[in-house]
Amino acid sequence: MRHLLTLRETSKQDILHILQTAASFKEILQRPVKKVPTLRGRAMVTLFYENSTRTRTSFEMAAKIMSAEAINIAVAQSSVAKGESLKDTLLTLQSLKADCIVMRHYAAGAPEFAAKLLQIPVVNAGDGRHEHPTQALLDLFTIQHYKGTIEDLTVAIVGDIAHSRVARSNIWGLTKLGAKVRLVGPRTLMPKDVDRLPVSVYYDLSAGLEGADVVNVLRIQTERQDRGLLPGLREYSRLYGISASTLRYAKPDVLVLHPGPMNRGVEISAEVADGKCGLQCAVTEQVTNGIAVRMAVLYLLMGVPQSEES
Amino acid sequence: MRHLLTLRETSKQDILHILQTAASFKEILQRPVKKVPTLRGRAMVTLFYENSTRTRTSFEMAAKIMSAEAINIAVAQSSVAKGESLKDTLLTLQSLKADCIVMRHYAAGAPEFAAKLLQIPVVNAGDGRHEHPTQALLDLFTIQHYKGTIEDLTVAIVGDIAHSRVARSNIWGLTKLGAKVRLVGPRTLMPKDVDRLPVSVYYDLSAGLEGADVVNVLRIQTERQDRGLLPGLREYSRLYGISASTLRYAKPDVLVLHPGPMNRGVEISAEVADGKCGLQCAVTEQVTNGIAVRMAVLYLLMGVPQSEES
Amino acid sequence: MRHLLTLRETSKQDILHILQTAASFKEILQRPVKKVPTLRGRAMVTLFYENSTRTRTSFEMAAKIMSAEAINIAVAQSSVAKGESLKDTLLTLQSLKADCIVMRHYAAGAPEFAAKLLQIPVVNAGDGRHEHPTQALLDLFTIQHYKGTIEDLTVAIVGDIAHSRVARSNIWGLTKLGAKVRLVGPRTLMPKDVDRLPVSVYYDLSAGLEGADVVNVLRIQTERQDRGLLPGLREYSRLYGISASTLRYAKPDVLVLHPGPMNRGVEISAEVADGKCGLQCAVTEQVTNGIAVRMAVLYLLMGVPQSEES
Repeated sequence: MRHLLTLRETSKQDILHILQTAASFKEILQRPVKKVPTLRGRAMVTLFYENSTRTRTSFEMAAKIMSAEAINIAVAQSSVAKGESLKDTLLTLQSLKADCIVMRHYAAGAPEFAAKLLQIPVVNAGDGRHEHPTQALLDLFTIQHYKGTIEDLTVAIVGDIAHSRVARSNIWGLTKLGAKVRLVGPRTLMPKDVDRLPVSVYYDLSAGLEGADVVNVLRIQTERQDRGLLPGLREYSRLYGISASTLRYAKPDVLVLHPGPMNRGVEISAEVADGKCGLQCAVTEQVTNGIAVRMAVLYLLMGVPQSEES
Repeated sequence: MRHLLTLRETSKQDILHILQTAASFKEILQRPVKKVPTLRGRAMVTLFYENSTRTRTSFEMAAKIMSAEAINIAVAQSSVAKGESLKDTLLTLQSLKADCIVMRHYAAGAPEFAAKLLQIPVVNAGDGRHEHPTQALLDLFTIQHYKGTIEDLTVAIVGDIAHSRVARSNIWGLTKLGAKVRLVGPRTLMPKDVDRLPVSVYYDLSAGLEGADVVNVLRIQTERQDRGLLPGLREYSRLYGISASTLRYAKPDVLVLHPGPMNRGVEISAEVADGKCGLQCAVTEQVTNGIAVRMAVLYLLMGVPQSEES
Repeated sequence: MRHLLTLRETSKQDILHILQTAASFKEILQRPVKKVPTLRGRAMVTLFYENSTRTRTSFEMAAKIMSAEAINIAVAQSSVAKGESLKDTLLTLQSLKADCIVMRHYAAGAPEFAAKLLQIPVVNAGDGRHEHPTQALLDLFTIQHYKGTIEDLTVAIVGDIAHSRVARSNIWGLTKLGAKVRLVGPRTLMPKDVDRLPVSVYYDLSAGLEGADVVNVLRIQTERQDRGLLPGLREYSRLYGISASTLRYAKPDVLVLHPGPMNRGVEISAEVADGKCGLQCAVTEQVTNGIAVRMAVLYLLMGVPQSEES
């Protein structure tokens, strides 16, 4: 594995290898002193063309625990404002001796462009509506932890699938590991190419949740409502909101995931978000698992064979 | 001590313990190589809903000198912009394995809310008009250094008391350690609950400074003038400005403090700010002492008993 | 050397010493594990009143490779917004135990003001239209690497000289090391004091490039065009653009430099930028050399004599 750009193009074997590596790193996160010398003297640069405190901080924490340097570039403040091309920005970062670029970009395919251009590894931290592979990997890791395996599970992804790179990476990751994936949501929020995806589609929540082992609830981007893409939020919540009552359609031990940030009371009720009433909601574990998964990815991409150590 | 939220609710004993610990750390700041392994492998997250380079940098420096990681989150750039609740932001940071959250918030009580919600320690770095305990601790530390003790000193706090969390934390800290506190300023800048505070109130500067051992000069927030809360700046300066000439009312060895940033020529004259004419102005020492005090706070909250070290 | 403020006032001997030191550091940048303990326990603060991801990241990388702490202050977010004077901001940073301040400011002379005020070393990272000494040092380093020496070389600086601190620092550095410097560009972009500079002036590109060993291409700040200071960009490009065809006037082994960010197709053609067609373009090496040069500067200013190590 030279880069992590998409789960669509990552093999089942590589996905399993990342998850196993993450499991071995997760133990470090439980220690009072969370510091290992694994990536000492290497530098990760985060290059974010869209804000994301959550994902950026997760990568930063992963790098620092392994003693790598983390240098953060938020593009609003960068020379891109001076009209520099993406190509030149990337070449500059490589010349600045970054050992890995973690990149979020509003344009689908930008990380792939970077990977073709550069000699250093590139990690896609979200590109347009395309993929967000580390988010899907942490979802897989969390499901595996709760359910033992992903094979043969039924996973319902509920909400705004059309605009969700998280959904897309989940679809590829889950199906490669043998899960059955259902997409649940209103017609207006289904992707146009849904017929070519390895999924079944449900416009009715109760049918979509029927017998589900896992429900992955997507964030409703309330800003889209203004553009008429959404029904009213109250209407959305009534039809597709995940609550203790709608979860009754799923299996009794259904596991609820959400990539965050959550709109409590819109796509997910507060009692589900807080894991009350005996509900299994792994939102906070997902965040912690995200560090373990990103440590694994950074290690596999930036780790130097011991014989090369100086 | 599990958190540091207010000085009102911190015991005299805990305050003295922090000041003693800070004294032992201050020596490290004089070394050419300012680095000790005390908090290696622990991560402090600063979560600032209001900007403050001064306070944030002081905490960052304190953490780094003790080998802790410092991760800074300025909320303008964070997912709060995406409508995430404070509760979920805090839970996310805890799940991101922060070992301590240093929090500045425009709403009084926000750090207390955080402390109740989380398992990790919370430090209040300023909440609304409520408290700013580490600023008051560094003021106490500085007074103790110059005067030997705080007991029985007369301390005049001059200026915009009503809007000042610094004043409030100072009042509690100073009175717990046995000082007599005077508030000096125009009626419009006195807090509404002034009758219930353990202070005496002076509307006349010369009377308020009479016999004072210490003068703590507050910043005039010139933006408030627009809202009619202040007399003209020139008028304010004439009536309440601290200068060599007005300091003659105080004791000859009066010590002048200012939390910064200063408006030279408004609440404080340049000659006082610069400690000229034999005046004792500790503004720059306050800044250095702030690092020592914050090292002490972080150490007492995040330090791991040696037996738990990995 | 106590500060690095300008190349005009840096001696030939000091410039050569920095370049030699940089050469010894450059080897570290080739290692898989880029980390030396040289500046452990020292803190560099970058104080930027203008944005520059490129320069700030280069200093940050240089500091981190030598195990120094890097604390970044972007002034848009700082207490300067609260009206603090530059003097007080600088004194505060010194009291915050910065061991070195790397400063970019829109006003020419601001770093010199800082150097006079403070006891700690100051590095000018660009001040107004005045100087940008580390950029010129990395240009010198790059030329030396390609050409063996700088003495007797003919160097053409092409473009918007009037507004370029890079040009000014290059003029002083190059002439001190024995190069002949030509300024090439339209009359409107020549500095007013050009008669007092140790350069020859060319308004015609072909004449200016005739026999040149090195061409240093400056960025056209397209935002100036609006103010009527520039001819149209297409016109500029036709008259002064550096391309494979215009480079024919220079020596066959001419070396092309650009401080970045580049406007491809305006002041430099894509084929030159990418070093195609056998052209020698050192833009990406310049970036890497910038780290080595900044490591040298930080080391020479902040390094502690071994006998003082704690």
